[in-house]
Amino acid sequence: MPTTDPFGLLEIVGTIAFAVSGGAVAVRAGMDWLGVIVLAVVTAVGGGTLRDLLLGQVPVSWMVHPWPLAVALVTGVLVILIASRRPHLAMDSLSPVLVADAIGLAAFTVGGTQASLIAGQIGVVAVILGVVTGAGGGVIRDLLASQRPLILVGQIYALAALGGATLLVLLDTWGLPAVGARWAAVAVILAVRLAAIRWDWALPRFTPAKTSQP
Amino acid sequence: MPTTDPFGLLEIVGTIAFAVSGGAVAVRAGMDWLGVIVLAVVTAVGGGTLRDLLLGQVPVSWMVHPWPLAVALVTGVLVILIASRRPHLAMDSLSPVLVADAIGLAAFTVGGTQASLIAGQIGVVAVILGVVTGAGGGVIRDLLASQRPLILVGQIYALAALGGATLLVLLDTWGLPAVGARWAAVAVILAVRLAAIRWDWALPRFTPAKTSQP
Amino acid sequence: MPTTDPFGLLEIVGTIAFAVSGGAVAVRAGMDWLGVIVLAVVTAVGGGTLRDLLLGQVPVSWMVHPWPLAVALVTGVLVILIASRRPHLAMDSLSPVLVADAIGLAAFTVGGTQASLIAGQIGVVAVILGVVTGAGGGVIRDLLASQRPLILVGQIYALAALGGATLLVLLDTWGLPAVGARWAAVAVILAVRLAAIRWDWALPRFTPAKTSQP
Repeated sequence: MPTTDPFGLLEIVGTIAFAVSGGAVAVRAGMDWLGVIVLAVVTAVGGGTLRDLLLGQVPVSWMVHPWPLAVALVTGVLVILIASRRPHLAMDSLSPVLVADAIGLAAFTVGGTQASLIAGQIGVVAVILGVVTGAGGGVIRDLLASQRPLILVGQIYALAALGGATLLVLLDTWGLPAVGARWAAVAVILAVRLAAIRWDWALPRFTPAKTSQP
Repeated sequence: MPTTDPFGLLEIVGTIAFAVSGGAVAVRAGMDWLGVIVLAVVTAVGGGTLRDLLLGQVPVSWMVHPWPLAVALVTGVLVILIASRRPHLAMDSLSPVLVADAIGLAAFTVGGTQASLIAGQIGVVAVILGVVTGAGGGVIRDLLASQRPLILVGQIYALAALGGATLLVLLDTWGLPAVGARWAAVAVILAVRLAAIRWDWALPRFTPAKTSQP
Repeated sequence: MPTTDPFGLLEIVGTIAFAVSGGAVAVRAGMDWLGVIVLAVVTAVGGGTLRDLLLGQVPVSWMVHPWPLAVALVTGVLVILIASRRPHLAMDSLSPVLVADAIGLAAFTVGGTQASLIAGQIGVVAVILGVVTGAGGGVIRDLLASQRPLILVGQIYALAALGGATLLVLLDTWGLPAVGARWAAVAVILAVRLAAIRWDWALPRFTPAKTSQP
């Protein structure tokens, strides 16, 4: 487990939060126990897996360092236990989970952006792969649960990741030390995302057409 | 074609069964002829493709040994012919197809787990990749047909694969010959899956929330 | 940008058209501004990304030559501007976009097929990867918008790509120069697709079952 530095702690918190979000979506969608475990794991490792595939870094990271698997599995089991005893909890008290999820978004996006820079990618690609790392797991989660990806319709989420990843690339270009740039980007993503939760910030949406399915 | 050993025969039966299941879902979903072919092929080769991508074994296996493509294509054409003449057949007489599908699940899961062990993956990763190989094609099929993946809501399916893959890894760790371990795992998956079909075994499911889509 | 030859021009036109189609689907589905940008980009680069992943050509092409990203981003912004001022435009006047989309289908399919042949793939695999390159972005677009992939239910689309890719492989096998074969295949795809739009050609479809979701 990446506990030797404070950033590693963020990644663990984020892995747990993403697994909770995946498990909670599975519970609400009426899946079975294995479905809850699968969505917990896929949400936690999906974004990094997409990044690794696009970068060609295979076997993908959780196959080399499987700690996120273990963390997500245990979290999924806990979600099952809690949701079985308190069926309404998953829907009512999401605030701490949303804060933890914001931590995960920040840690994963920043980690993904830095990994892409280290792999030699140009700035715009590193930003995109950072956002994919941070938000991709949630997109896979929503596809598996047959719901439109939340990041495309809801509160500001991927935009926070986009802002933080862009800042990170700029600071990197300007020659700032990686550690300082990383924490600045984490702070920006956390601040924007938490503000979006607190004040319900959203980008302008279009009005859906009457019949989107022909 | 992998017909030199009995296990290869299972893989062919499984490829046919998976192609039938993909084609039947396309027919029920009201797709056109090409849609039936596409879903037949994708269901048959999708799980192995995901495994190969995650392992970094590219070009993926059906590009190197294209026999499953040919088998799935021919099967898809047969599904079109049969479904055009007997529109109710695909829905009413699924039992032989379900048994063949169970054979496919067993063969693909065991093959995927062993391929992962041979590629040097640790046990837990080999189990996951085995289940992805066995159940992944069905998940892609359901996503393309806009239906929630059956393996996350229905009868015991992926759990059977999980049990067989775990047994295979354990037997491999204990030093049993690969051939014996393979057939033991196939037997477990088949037994559990056929029992689940026969007695309608399912994992506990959560009650869906009223509004799963915000 | 690949503007040194006329074929490169087709690819640019196709990238713009695919981005428009992605953005328009996002608008109709009621996504926010970022959703429009994401669907524009994913539709434009998705098919080539799938091909690159299956071929093992990583980092994928838009990470090495990022011009399609830039084109799709700018197009997505234009879609937002136009859809905000003229909310009904995206739905009513699709004809020029459909023609441009046909150009994109032709250019992407032919480019993908040739790239696969150059990578040493056999003919049937090159045809499949060509169709994946041409039609894959639209499939990802539809999955993200929670609608059944249009190519599996609607007018003749992937079949046009299939025909052109097959012709290209045959001409290549017969030893024709690559440039001539390429343009012949482009002509076939364009002709079939435009005729399908003009006369509403479609493959036979099956009648959907009452309950496709159990």
